[in-house]
Amino acid sequence: MSIIVQKFGGSSVANVARIKMVAKRIVRAKKRGVKPVVVVSALGDTTDELEKLVSQITDEPDEREMDMLLSTGEQVSVALLAMAIHELGVGAVSFTGPQVGIITDRLHTKARILGINAARIHQALRRDKVVIVAGFQGRTESGEITTLGRGGSDLTAVALAQVLGATACEIYTDVDGIYTADPRIVRDARMIEQISYDEILEMAALGAKVMHARSVEVGKKFNVPIYVRNSAHNGKGTLITKESKKMEDVVVSGVALMEDEAKITIFSVPDKPGIAAKIFAKLAAGEVNIDMIIQNKTETNTTDISFTVYKKELRKALRVVKDAVSKLGVRRVVCDENISKVSIVGVGMRSHSGVAAKMFRCLARKQINIDMISTSEIKISCVVNGRKGKQAVRAIHKEFGLGTGKGQKGRA
Amino acid sequence: MSIIVQKFGGSSVANVARIKMVAKRIVRAKKRGVKPVVVVSALGDTTDELEKLVSQITDEPDEREMDMLLSTGEQVSVALLAMAIHELGVGAVSFTGPQVGIITDRLHTKARILGINAARIHQALRRDKVVIVAGFQGRTESGEITTLGRGGSDLTAVALAQVLGATACEIYTDVDGIYTADPRIVRDARMIEQISYDEILEMAALGAKVMHARSVEVGKKFNVPIYVRNSAHNGKGTLITKESKKMEDVVVSGVALMEDEAKITIFSVPDKPGIAAKIFAKLAAGEVNIDMIIQNKTETNTTDISFTVYKKELRKALRVVKDAVSKLGVRRVVCDENISKVSIVGVGMRSHSGVAAKMFRCLARKQINIDMISTSEIKISCVVNGRKGKQAVRAIHKEFGLGTGKGQKGRA
Repeated sequence: MSIIVQKFGGSSVANVARIKMVAKRIVRAKKRGVKPVVVVSALGDTTDELEKLVSQITDEPDEREMDMLLSTGEQVSVALLAMAIHELGVGAVSFTGPQVGIITDRLHTKARILGINAARIHQALRRDKVVIVAGFQGRTESGEITTLGRGGSDLTAVALAQVLGATACEIYTDVDGIYTADPRIVRDARMIEQISYDEILEMAALGAKVMHARSVEVGKKFNVPIYVRNSAHNGKGTLITKESKKMEDVVVSGVALMEDEAKITIFSVPDKPGIAAKIFAKLAAGEVNIDMIIQNKTETNTTDISFTVYKKELRKALRVVKDAVSKLGVRRVVCDENISKVSIVGVGMRSHSGVAAKMFRCLARKQINIDMISTSEIKISCVVNGRKGKQAVRAIHKEFGLGTGKGQKGRA
Repeated sequence: MSIIVQKFGGSSVANVARIKMVAKRIVRAKKRGVKPVVVVSALGDTTDELEKLVSQITDEPDEREMDMLLSTGEQVSVALLAMAIHELGVGAVSFTGPQVGIITDRLHTKARILGINAARIHQALRRDKVVIVAGFQGRTESGEITTLGRGGSDLTAVALAQVLGATACEIYTDVDGIYTADPRIVRDARMIEQISYDEILEMAALGAKVMHARSVEVGKKFNVPIYVRNSAHNGKGTLITKESKKMEDVVVSGVALMEDEAKITIFSVPDKPGIAAKIFAKLAAGEVNIDMIIQNKTETNTTDISFTVYKKELRKALRVVKDAVSKLGVRRVVCDENISKVSIVGVGMRSHSGVAAKMFRCLARKQINIDMISTSEIKISCVVNGRKGKQAVRAIHKEFGLGTGKGQKGRA
């Protein structure tokens, strides 16, 4: 009998009525003859509420204590879901991440999974139980509770699917699947039936909110088929799988918008080897995630360096940067929080040319200025003015003919 | 440097403002030169809120899952309190019960502590940290999360005080100490400065709500001095300690009222040896707690048996009883939820006589009928009509001259 990992996000278990719906879905799967292993996030806005309490106590909470605090959210969900399944007459048992042997490193609030000891899950499955695991959390070798950071519950699900040899990992959410663009921005965005790990990886990194990169990476590494589905109905959803010939026919699979980043520019950095390395090493040591980096040589013997970071890490980043450049004679460090990153993604770019030119032309026609550009084999990103991001997405989505045709006279 | 265990109940950490107050108190203690080990309950009405969610899912929740659920409440408290202490510039580290090695049996929702491995606490104390432990919870040998039931956080505190060799265990609450009677019922109730473990044991078992019997038992067994204090100010509170000569001068230390019990009566039980044993063995096997038992022989060859149970266990008790007597030809089983138990407690009873007579006379004068009586060396309990309980407490409190004198013209 095959194991299926089903993951339900916070919106799928936002209240008791939805928890009961989820329980029914799980029981249906079990009655179809599969062994469900379920991963659940915290109820609705539990995490926000806990963070609000924290903000009344401290501005810089200790990360170990944050993990103690936030890991309770998922523990509540798994217990309630187990009870809801019992109520349907089916055996179920819930586990926290630490209980189920999800061992991580010691990087609190964004720990990495080092390994999973699935003995306890197998034991429960042998007793014919539905196994429910708290997403987003694990423990260090020495027993400290850790959380996995953004997309942590997806990561738990995909990692469990791999370790358990599950036939698939189903990620249930409040949208029907993965779209060519955010349907709240582009009215006629189309659901994608099948997409490659690499494309999703780019899209996730670029701001598409459905799946986080880390879980897709694990899926890709171990070739775990991942379905993204709506928990409210029985739609097929989007299958994330390995790249196939057919996928290459599509030049651009989707357009993504990222509005969570800010740009930091360091002016007049001495143009000597090793200086940039020094600055970014300090940022790495300070655990600041850097996205795009651009370096422009100026007329003098100095250079300007710009890079983007998550807005929520901006304060930390600025502190680290100012400290790092304090003895370098740097003129000034400025930041710009009003930026958007617009990206197109598609494995078809490998075999089609002129894609970048088409994107830039489209933006130019809309009088949208491009501030930074970054490309990979299967994506092109442009940083534009924060107020122009959505307009840019709509224009590009239309330019590449990605829509369903419905509502094309929309806001684009 | 001596260790002091400080326990703060749910009302002491009901909101962020109170958590900060508690943090200040702990830091003050630390600066006085003691090593505080702190036990915390769940914030205010967290537990009620979680139970409300459960009630929307199921009437009979699985007890293992209840423990998974409810143990999150204390985990939230300890993390927030640790952050509040950090904010005062003092090192602190929080632990769940399982993390800190509180090992229990497998009796979910009312587990017993089997042992505590305090290595991790000592390690944190050596690093000069305030140690904060989630009350009310532990884990089984096999890693299941358990909760300790009513008074569980007090129990955690006293057990830790014993294991750590603490000089005292301070139980902080929202009242000033232990009173001769519930001040909400008896206006001129007086705070008791010092009282024996045995008296508190009786009072706790009889409905006085300040300390639960189990924690006092541990305190008594290992002679841990327990202070009951108000977390809102610096009052001395009540010291619970071993019995002293001086205590015997007081005939009655306090009057307690218990309104949480119900009475079950089994009519016409065949009057043969072993029948009662059989019934109560089944109740014990069903984990129903029995308090008072009375058996009356009737005129025929049968007997009527009455006993009291907690109201919340009444349904379970009735089910077990009806099942147990189904083949005994018993006429009927009835229950009465409208009862109150009024009790007086005092080690002085050992050396003073006529105490029971005085109590019964007092009730008779107030026209309060006595339904069941139960006595021990240091207590006398009477079950009366549920509507008469408070009146009885006031009358008896006055009869034995326990008040401060203030407000004696009150409702009694």
